[in-house]
Amino acid sequence: MPIARDPLHAVLDPGSVAIIGASSDPDKVGGRPVDYLRRYGFGGVIHPVNPRRDEVQGLRTVPSLAALDEPVDVVLVAVPGASAVEAVEAAAKAGALATIVMTAGFGETGSPEGVAQQQRMLTAARAAGMRLFGPNSQGLANFGTGAVLGFSTMFAEQPPQDGPVAVISQSGAMCSVPYGLLRRRGIGVRHAHATGNDADVTVGELAAAVAADPQVRLILLYLENLSDPESLAAAARVARERDLPIVALMGGRSAAGQRAAKSHTGARAGERRVIDAYFAELGIRRAMSMPELVDTTELYLQDWRPQGRRLVVVSNSGAVCVLAADAAEDRAMPLAALSAETEERVAAVLPGFATSSNPIDVTAALLTDSGLFGKVLPLVAEDPDADAFLLGIPVAGKGYDVPRFAVDAAGFAARTGKPLVVAAPQESVAEEFRRRGMTVYPDESTAIGALDHYLTHAQLRRSARTEPRSYGTGAASPDPVTLDEAAALARLAGAGIPVVRHHLCRSRDEAIAAFAELGPGAVVAKGCSIDAPHKSEHGLVELGLITADATGAAYDRLTTRIRQLGLTFGGVIIAEHVRALHEMVVGARRDPTFGPVVLVGQGGKYVEYLPDVQVMLAPLERERALQAIGQLRLARVLGGVRGEPAADVDALADLAVRVGEMVAADPGLVAIDINPVMLRAAGEGAVIVDALVLTG
Amino acid sequence: MPIARDPLHAVLDPGSVAIIGASSDPDKVGGRPVDYLRRYGFGGVIHPVNPRRDEVQGLRTVPSLAALDEPVDVVLVAVPGASAVEAVEAAAKAGALATIVMTAGFGETGSPEGVAQQQRMLTAARAAGMRLFGPNSQGLANFGTGAVLGFSTMFAEQPPQDGPVAVISQSGAMCSVPYGLLRRRGIGVRHAHATGNDADVTVGELAAAVAADPQVRLILLYLENLSDPESLAAAARVARERDLPIVALMGGRSAAGQRAAKSHTGARAGERRVIDAYFAELGIRRAMSMPELVDTTELYLQDWRPQGRRLVVVSNSGAVCVLAADAAEDRAMPLAALSAETEERVAAVLPGFATSSNPIDVTAALLTDSGLFGKVLPLVAEDPDADAFLLGIPVAGKGYDVPRFAVDAAGFAARTGKPLVVAAPQESVAEEFRRRGMTVYPDESTAIGALDHYLTHAQLRRSARTEPRSYGTGAASPDPVTLDEAAALARLAGAGIPVVRHHLCRSRDEAIAAFAELGPGAVVAKGCSIDAPHKSEHGLVELGLITADATGAAYDRLTTRIRQLGLTFGGVIIAEHVRALHEMVVGARRDPTFGPVVLVGQGGKYVEYLPDVQVMLAPLERERALQAIGQLRLARVLGGVRGEPAADVDALADLAVRVGEMVAADPGLVAIDINPVMLRAAGEGAVIVDALVLTG
Repeated sequence: MPIARDPLHAVLDPGSVAIIGASSDPDKVGGRPVDYLRRYGFGGVIHPVNPRRDEVQGLRTVPSLAALDEPVDVVLVAVPGASAVEAVEAAAKAGALATIVMTAGFGETGSPEGVAQQQRMLTAARAAGMRLFGPNSQGLANFGTGAVLGFSTMFAEQPPQDGPVAVISQSGAMCSVPYGLLRRRGIGVRHAHATGNDADVTVGELAAAVAADPQVRLILLYLENLSDPESLAAAARVARERDLPIVALMGGRSAAGQRAAKSHTGARAGERRVIDAYFAELGIRRAMSMPELVDTTELYLQDWRPQGRRLVVVSNSGAVCVLAADAAEDRAMPLAALSAETEERVAAVLPGFATSSNPIDVTAALLTDSGLFGKVLPLVAEDPDADAFLLGIPVAGKGYDVPRFAVDAAGFAARTGKPLVVAAPQESVAEEFRRRGMTVYPDESTAIGALDHYLTHAQLRRSARTEPRSYGTGAASPDPVTLDEAAALARLAGAGIPVVRHHLCRSRDEAIAAFAELGPGAVVAKGCSIDAPHKSEHGLVELGLITADATGAAYDRLTTRIRQLGLTFGGVIIAEHVRALHEMVVGARRDPTFGPVVLVGQGGKYVEYLPDVQVMLAPLERERALQAIGQLRLARVLGGVRGEPAADVDALADLAVRVGEMVAADPGLVAIDINPVMLRAAGEGAVIVDALVLTG
Repeated sequence: MPIARDPLHAVLDPGSVAIIGASSDPDKVGGRPVDYLRRYGFGGVIHPVNPRRDEVQGLRTVPSLAALDEPVDVVLVAVPGASAVEAVEAAAKAGALATIVMTAGFGETGSPEGVAQQQRMLTAARAAGMRLFGPNSQGLANFGTGAVLGFSTMFAEQPPQDGPVAVISQSGAMCSVPYGLLRRRGIGVRHAHATGNDADVTVGELAAAVAADPQVRLILLYLENLSDPESLAAAARVARERDLPIVALMGGRSAAGQRAAKSHTGARAGERRVIDAYFAELGIRRAMSMPELVDTTELYLQDWRPQGRRLVVVSNSGAVCVLAADAAEDRAMPLAALSAETEERVAAVLPGFATSSNPIDVTAALLTDSGLFGKVLPLVAEDPDADAFLLGIPVAGKGYDVPRFAVDAAGFAARTGKPLVVAAPQESVAEEFRRRGMTVYPDESTAIGALDHYLTHAQLRRSARTEPRSYGTGAASPDPVTLDEAAALARLAGAGIPVVRHHLCRSRDEAIAAFAELGPGAVVAKGCSIDAPHKSEHGLVELGLITADATGAAYDRLTTRIRQLGLTFGGVIIAEHVRALHEMVVGARRDPTFGPVVLVGQGGKYVEYLPDVQVMLAPLERERALQAIGQLRLARVLGGVRGEPAADVDALADLAVRVGEMVAADPGLVAIDINPVMLRAAGEGAVIVDALVLTG
């Protein structure tokens, strides 16, 4: 067996392993890896390290790493507390490529001594060029090479089998649980790694190494923090090149979950929408629960070439047709509109009272003609509108030729390459389909939910960002300065953003001249002060000025008001009055982990309370901004309803792109908040009438 | 066995049954009931009717019903087409109490002959005072009495066992599927009825009879139409008196599902929100899918006394704590804020690095102290904030004393009466808990989802309407008349609804006098015409009139404009200008099935496109209107945000109640649509400035 000298590949396929704290009891943390390595076919050398015993589980021990003739590839640490720190230092000294610390009680406790001990391990490893996994790691397990370097109970409960799935988790439990659920369904799991505190090697780095394993066809991740967005992004790039899907369950979506995560791993998960944006552009699907993480596994392991999401439902039950139609609408999966020709061809093979339009109810006639599914499916598959199929068999027993249905459906699925899932609550029926490689769910709703996740992910992967980006260009200034409105508008105009025609006036005459230049029509007067970013709350906005005199009078009133309020006078802005079809919000800021982010959504004063916004990482392409705008709740009306014209979403997207570029290009720019953006009809653009710009 | 003479109770416990079309093949539709009746302990008399055989499955046949000496209680019809109609006529003539027609191919096909044949059955039954089930019924099955009068394959696939659950379905498949799913989980199902076309007896009527069965503790319904809301409401009343929960899955929520339902049972499901309102006030929980229908069953069968929905999570895994907190927030189930005293007491029994605040992570210390759950649970149970519990055990194997955990948890649950669910993916762990009567789900997300449904339903049942109501006071007029604005406002004012101060003027002088009476301050002028209900689209609204002259001029412009547009002149309304804190919508109309319904929600021009509305049946109580307002998306801001005052939701609720009363009291009132309702700060009321009233 060739020894891979790259530490990350070495832990997946080591030539030699030393276990510090190796136990003769195979149920102890230090005994399990010895047992597992021997039981699951590890071909390398195993060195139990134990100064008090000559042999452990039939293997000759060494008293210490120093007693070994040559360096080992991987050291596994199972001794408690300070001894674990010494073990890491010894491993570093002995020239190990990587050390996995299974011992808990370090950084995750938040205690000063735990944090300091973890830091000592890290320092020793870094100084020696050795990579460190954990501490608090349940261990790594590669059932392809037999390198089972961990102590998960679950490998004994659900015997392993090499296969196409990799599970990588920060939590030991959330490594064991998906492993166990998948193994129970008979799915082979090659990798089951739990990285723990990620003091050195992170889940992302390990995922990149796993993604390079050609036997892996699906990666499932469990995360609680993402302090290192670059490494997971690199893994996603490796995966994308191989067309390898990644699904991630990240705990701590909610405020309560973030508090729990903080006391679990000591790490803050970050803002949900920003993480969603990060995953989305990497083509990683974010699962919201353990079922969502594992329930689509069988779909990924099929050899389908999914295109659209228009569904065809075929069942021997009208009620399944009804419930499937409901579930599809819940999931925004349209039922395929079959052509008249397809419907005629389907009708020709069905009995008179059956339904030949989609959903297709072949009725209990299936009892007398067992070939109905086999006849109907190929007919609908040829319809260009049919993207995916659900076959629903709620009841079949004596009299039904279920093996025939399964053979017909499997043959059909193999020919088309279009996704087909089966909904069958009876285990006996499900088994007939599974035996022929089909994916079966217990009901139409669960089946359509899984299909939705799978197809949505296929779309997400197609639109994944191909360019690498650098994240986290440093924390935002803790003490930013707010520009006054005139300066903010000037800054945005300078960046090519369309700003309302306006003049900053410092006298009544200038205000009157501004009216003359901007008119005819109403103008707006706004008192400027660096001390009052929220002008309307201070009564510093006057609307509907339609004469030069009114404009001059407004100038006088606003200057007086600023003086009365004791604010710094920054002039009075006289601006053209702009009408909008829709008032939107566009903003940008700097996330401490992910760098510049852009927000676009419905504007107004309740943005924080009734949010209808989308968040994207910046810089971004116009296409991604348009996608995000299309996902707004407001999107339904932006296309034009009630006789209104369509809104200029291209201009809105351009604005989001431009604002993102500004923050990305200038680390001194802390935040931009434009609310409202005056969005006009298609072709008429979007105009900014006010903005808040923070610099640091 | 005493013979119940009420036909609906007779079909559940008949003294005698005749099967027309009885077959000697127990796998045929006419053979299965004979087999099932004998196999499942039916104690009454069975008469196979078959003119061509002397015996069927060991029973002596009769050639016809007429050949019987005395009338049978129930006749089961298994002969095809026109013979089925004749069989019903014969049953009616022979004095049967009820007939169940299993034969399909009648009303559900939509064909004229099928519909006519079904009508003939109904006519014969009604004339004789006999009740008719079906046609197209899979049959009724009561495993408590052995009266299995149907042909479901599923009873052979999953052997029956009497128990606390009743399934009543219009669809045969959706009777068999929940029966099978529950039986597979070891739950006893007493009733499994599939009513088919409901030509005479409806699901609701049968549900009322089943609800009176004292052994039944949970009723599950599957419906595709609700043409007969009274009968299900009556069933809900019977159930409420017994504290018996009802859960209903109604197919056809979506447009696509409604189309499918129409071709399945020929019936239209009705508008989703109206049906939701109907179920809600009956205390019936609406399930959205088959899993939602059946997954809470075990919870209903516990003897809990649920109060609030504040959750306590206890686990040996920090990751489960994190994921459970996320799932709870998704479900709007707050994590209980344990008192400092509780936390101290919990901390005293946990090791130092464990988390004593909620969610409580007892850590792997559970391995060394198997009594930890037993120690922690009683401590948190005493906290007044703890309403419900989740115990999460993602991994346990060798070394864990799982039976001890289960005994401790079961003892605890029995003492508190508070709901406790377990999340355990390992079958071996789950089994230990189930054996002791606990409810176990495979993961924290599914467990919390089920708990949410159960607790939400408990709340729904507590707030169920106790007064019976009569639904469907006749269809709305097909050709309604729109009142002009002045008439509409007068109509609403007459019903005690607060209408803006205004005058309908028919001359410039009247307009000027109106200004004098309404001022000082701005008034609004609106040109009235019965031909132009949408005034602003016709340029018939002028705002911000602050002088008598301006008001007079506006009067002239509006009268000219009405003349130019060729519209009927109805005068000009001069009204006080009203400012609103929030613009809302309130409406009422007459649903063809459910009668008067009221809508309340966010107003504005996009009500149809970005709906944030709640629908209720009318007349309704203020409390229900307030509840509905509290469920609006907008509710978050109605309480007052950004320094704004709280809105006068009481006034809004009163308005909804009043409008509902108006439509309920007057069948000539087709619809009222008030948009916007000018909602002001608490104590300042809600005022109407415009309204659309349709009469017929």
